[in-house]
Amino acid sequence: MVVRGAPAIGATAAYGMAQAGLQGVDLKEAGDRLRKTRPTGNDLFYAIEYMRKARAAGDDLVVAADRYAQEDIDRCRKIGEHGAKLIRNGIRILTHCNAGALATVDYGTVMAPLRVAKEQGRRFFVYVDETRPRLQGSRLTAWELLQEGIDHAIITGGAAAAFLGRGEVDLVLVGADRIAANGDTANKIGTYGKAVVAKENRIPFYVAAPTSTIDFDLASGDKIPIEERSPQEVLHLDGHPIAPKESPARNPAFDVTPAKYITGIITEEGIVKPGELRSGAAKAPRKKTSAKKRR
Amino acid sequence: MVVRGAPAIGATAAYGMAQAGLQGVDLKEAGDRLRKTRPTGNDLFYAIEYMRKARAAGDDLVVAADRYAQEDIDRCRKIGEHGAKLIRNGIRILTHCNAGALATVDYGTVMAPLRVAKEQGRRFFVYVDETRPRLQGSRLTAWELLQEGIDHAIITGGAAAAFLGRGEVDLVLVGADRIAANGDTANKIGTYGKAVVAKENRIPFYVAAPTSTIDFDLASGDKIPIEERSPQEVLHLDGHPIAPKESPARNPAFDVTPAKYITGIITEEGIVKPGELRSGAAKAPRKKTSAKKRR
Repeated sequence: MVVRGAPAIGATAAYGMAQAGLQGVDLKEAGDRLRKTRPTGNDLFYAIEYMRKARAAGDDLVVAADRYAQEDIDRCRKIGEHGAKLIRNGIRILTHCNAGALATVDYGTVMAPLRVAKEQGRRFFVYVDETRPRLQGSRLTAWELLQEGIDHAIITGGAAAAFLGRGEVDLVLVGADRIAANGDTANKIGTYGKAVVAKENRIPFYVAAPTSTIDFDLASGDKIPIEERSPQEVLHLDGHPIAPKESPARNPAFDVTPAKYITGIITEEGIVKPGELRSGAAKAPRKKTSAKKRR
Repeated sequence: MVVRGAPAIGATAAYGMAQAGLQGVDLKEAGDRLRKTRPTGNDLFYAIEYMRKARAAGDDLVVAADRYAQEDIDRCRKIGEHGAKLIRNGIRILTHCNAGALATVDYGTVMAPLRVAKEQGRRFFVYVDETRPRLQGSRLTAWELLQEGIDHAIITGGAAAAFLGRGEVDLVLVGADRIAANGDTANKIGTYGKAVVAKENRIPFYVAAPTSTIDFDLASGDKIPIEERSPQEVLHLDGHPIAPKESPARNPAFDVTPAKYITGIITEEGIVKPGELRSGAAKAPRKKTSAKKRR
């Protein structure tokens, strides 16, 4: 958790592989070790594979890692351009966790459409779910929105559902840690509940994520390994106890939102329905032109 | 918030009215003042009316307040007897906020069926939603469960939805602050989202509340005033800031769960469907015998 956010973890892994190469460490061994650091997000595995292929192609590994980081920024900017179309003037958006510049190399995934819409002169309001237990919403997303001058209010996860039910949200926009081939999406714990309540209230629910987050080898989301983190994250806040010390806690860090609750996935190649990931825009990384560009 | 929990607030108001009577304060004035302290919970208004009727009947007000408190305990014990029937051996229960002895005069509403089932030798597991922003789940409910020796784990609100979705919860049991005549139920913020996700996953969702929480004068839940509390409760924890100081917050303290998401309401007079509150068991307080006993 020194590095967080699936795309940022991916770029860090790319540089980790380059570092291993510089130090003469076997890249397979380095990749295996990096793979074990976080089980849920896909970008980590994508980046390790990217670097392995760069080595196989005889590329300089530092140059390849720099290229990976630049491509992450490019993907985020394109997500911004596509996603901004969803942000009509005056709408109220609910987001969860942090998928901004602090979770990517720069620019962000969820934050990208917000930045672009703001640049295009549209006004909108963002409800920021504080995102227990680590408070990435109140600590990171709120801070990023302040930097951008975007109107917002921090709310608890329980209040997020209430605002959805009360008709005070027009669009839900979240990031992703891993998207299965069928569109099922693993993201920060608390995402699933919002998706169900959004659908119940006919509020569009979009996932913003680069294609590096899509795991085409995984048929469905029930196969995504969910990291269970220390109970101390639930029982303490900044080292300060907030529960009886004898009480245990459970702390799954992610949940899986089935594709049926997801209106669309905003990738760098366009907005696609979760059931259409294998065909159309989001399949593009496997097309010859972009495959050449990427690998 | 020095006193919390709708039934505990009701009993406190009864003693407040008795105190006013002892000090020669006009009871109408005292009642008007008490009414303004908290807008959402019904027991407060129920207790003020109870005491006004006691005065009109020539009762000693301290004796009447003692009787009110004893009746609250009796109601909770009966809720326990009825509700315990829902707790089969080995089930996993999700609860929210605190509706135990610390929210009532004694014994609790949600806690009552748990106590009785435990006394009857059944084993079960309770997932305790920490309940942001005030953490009544982790701070109060977990503590009460420890006293009773009931197995439990504290989880975040986001994780609660995930556990419901993963089939790891068999029953949801929550309290209430006010129940409208049609069964719509106001309870601690975060309740509504759980109810929607429970229904989506066909998990029974029960409300445990004494009939003093039912507001027969209110046709539906959209008429229940929702208290909005200080943003500081969201932005700080024990005086410690957890968000940028420039970021605003919204903090509705309660939400309303429409009756369609509620499987049943456990009152002291039995378990009734939310749509059947006007007829049958829960109407009983207006029947002659119990009306005599209560008023």
